[in-house]
Amino acid sequence: MQSKLPNLGVSIFSQMTALANEHQALNLSQGFPEFDTPEALKNKLNLYSAQGFNQYSPSSGVPALQQQIADLVLRKYALTISPEASVTVTSGATEALYVAIQALVSPDDEVIVFDPAYDSYQPAIELAGGKAVHIALTAPNYQIDWQQVANAITNKTKAIIINSPHNPSTKTLKQTDINALKLLLEEHDLYLISDEVYEHICFDGATHLSALGDDALFARSFVVSSFGKTFHCTGWKMGYCVAPEKLMVEFRKIHQYVTFSSFTPAQLALADMLKEQPNHVDELSTFYQHKRDVLSNALANSRFTLLPSEGTYFLLLDYSTISELDDVAFCEYLVKEVGVAAIPLSVFYENAPGDRVIRLCFAKEDATLIAAAEKLCQL
Amino acid sequence: MQSKLPNLGVSIFSQMTALANEHQALNLSQGFPEFDTPEALKNKLNLYSAQGFNQYSPSSGVPALQQQIADLVLRKYALTISPEASVTVTSGATEALYVAIQALVSPDDEVIVFDPAYDSYQPAIELAGGKAVHIALTAPNYQIDWQQVANAITNKTKAIIINSPHNPSTKTLKQTDINALKLLLEEHDLYLISDEVYEHICFDGATHLSALGDDALFARSFVVSSFGKTFHCTGWKMGYCVAPEKLMVEFRKIHQYVTFSSFTPAQLALADMLKEQPNHVDELSTFYQHKRDVLSNALANSRFTLLPSEGTYFLLLDYSTISELDDVAFCEYLVKEVGVAAIPLSVFYENAPGDRVIRLCFAKEDATLIAAAEKLCQL
Ligand SMILES: CSCCC(=O)C(=O)O
Ligand SMILES: CSCCC(=O)C(=O)O
Repeated sequence: MQSKLPNLGVSIFSQMTALANEHQALNLSQGFPEFDTPEALKNKLNLYSAQGFNQYSPSSGVPALQQQIADLVLRKYALTISPEASVTVTSGATEALYVAIQALVSPDDEVIVFDPAYDSYQPAIELAGGKAVHIALTAPNYQIDWQQVANAITNKTKAIIINSPHNPSTKTLKQTDINALKLLLEEHDLYLISDEVYEHICFDGATHLSALGDDALFARSFVVSSFGKTFHCTGWKMGYCVAPEKLMVEFRKIHQYVTFSSFTPAQLALADMLKEQPNHVDELSTFYQHKRDVLSNALANSRFTLLPSEGTYFLLLDYSTISELDDVAFCEYLVKEVGVAAIPLSVFYENAPGDRVIRLCFAKEDATLIAAAEKLCQL
Repeated sequence: MQSKLPNLGVSIFSQMTALANEHQALNLSQGFPEFDTPEALKNKLNLYSAQGFNQYSPSSGVPALQQQIADLVLRKYALTISPEASVTVTSGATEALYVAIQALVSPDDEVIVFDPAYDSYQPAIELAGGKAVHIALTAPNYQIDWQQVANAITNKTKAIIINSPHNPSTKTLKQTDINALKLLLEEHDLYLISDEVYEHICFDGATHLSALGDDALFARSFVVSSFGKTFHCTGWKMGYCVAPEKLMVEFRKIHQYVTFSSFTPAQLALADMLKEQPNHVDELSTFYQHKRDVLSNALANSRFTLLPSEGTYFLLLDYSTISELDDVAFCEYLVKEVGVAAIPLSVFYENAPGDRVIRLCFAKEDATLIAAAEKLCQL
């Protein structure tokens, strides 16, 4: 059988978590919380399942959850959307990204992605018959040069994928970025896929600039978010997409044949959580900024150079004063010899720039962060 | 935005369930149980979630569930498979079918499907750039003419999709079908996607003939099944695919970027259920045969002609002595005027043969089946 994705192996996250388990290393590689989802949410899950809500939800999601998502969008970004027409619940943000890409991209279409790019974008674009056009951003600033983006646009360009706060660079788009982006999209009549799964995790008082915060931008956007990141339940695989009705119609045609619908009791539980504990979302930045600072402080005396973390639950370390190894080899050394699993940044590039940078996930208990930092300080 | 699936609307199941709710009709349309998933399974779900198993599972599934699936395959079909290499848990059988099709089908490939065909096959094939070649089977026997299949094979044919027990016709493939299928696959070097989501629901003492029951057939097969059907939890969206390692490698490359993984606590709960209550699976045919007979007996004095139901949880009714309406119009009449929602068979055909046949789902409480039959007996 001929491979549809011949150059692709097992995802770096699966690989590193398996290696971490094998070598009993502290796993700061794959992005998932070490702490549990709130008790209240687990209780709700149990309640709805026990009460018998175990059959198919509507393909677009349970209405109560669509409503809570619309309410959140209004509260946070002052945008009024129709929950019925513009919100679809998905089996994780991964499914939402995959479906949005399938809905947009036809054979030979080009999609602009910024490297380091989340590993699912490129295969999803390829499977739709399209071509990912990579623009490389580099350490330490990962700044987008919008003129370079303009130059990369051809008459085949269909869409741009952005991700802010950005995994793995942690960068957040600024208003000047949003303005430049909007100009380009309008000038060339392009669509936007805006991956905002870390929308509630922004540090140092910054506010997240969402594609939902600008009417003209939203008019051409699929906006993707994740409950796994927000409620510490990555294993529930609950995400969603918000889009204007015209785009959402096409998204749903595909979603209904990719997964049809998502775990019903979890949808009902999340709807209650969003309604009853709106402050959970609001407190997430403070919660994770503390984690960031615990890890950063514990690494202050290490030989690593810490890159500023603006959002997400990741911290980048430059190890160029410590080792000549490339980042994949360095991560292999870390997991096997030092007992800490990290993610090399080069795997997120089409053409890696040779930066010596690795990513640590700080969605871990403080004790784990301190123990990992102690090991890293030995280097 | 140009549509990737221009001829496609909302799935018939979503439409009919919405209509049933709107008109407060008895909903015998979309296939889902009216009764709940077993208490033991719900308790396990609660237990694993409460204990903190709420983060990503491995992309291929939790090992305990992969193992139980391999054990079930051995027990039921006497086939030994590697749980690590050959089993992948998916977010419902719909995802498994979608991913298998994406893994197999490249632009211009042809895939043979038998109409009436489950509604997800054709869009999944189209999204992969392929073409569905439809072979129509007709009431009352829905018999496959294998010579006709042979004639439909071209040098572009890549795969055949079978579904046994078959939704919506309820037919089960016989040994002569399997033999003919195997010959064709081998002669033309084709792959098989075997949709066996109703594998445990076979009536009148018949045994299900699985692609897993024949080594040579399995060697070129993706076999798809569903826990939703087996454990009355369609809203959990839990299914799986079994395939030889070489095929599974390609399946997983795509699965990891479509959903990555499925609901972790539900996977752990299902693993326990399969281990602790193996008889649940074995008793399913008897359970549903009773339901079939309750509905059939209650309709005995109606003017409908009942087609024999060999498996699945569906019963087909021929209404040609009752009405001249086409089946879509007849189902609209039933839901609005009679108070019973059913599914018209023509929607599962590329070119509907004009049979006057509708599908009823009997995965309902006996009282519901009897109440629905009473309404239908008035016609
Ligand atoms: C789906 S596994 C990847 C988790 C994640 O988002 C990350 O580690 O970047
Ligand atoms: C995913 S909704 C369709 C349910 C079903 O399998 C059917 O009714 O045939």
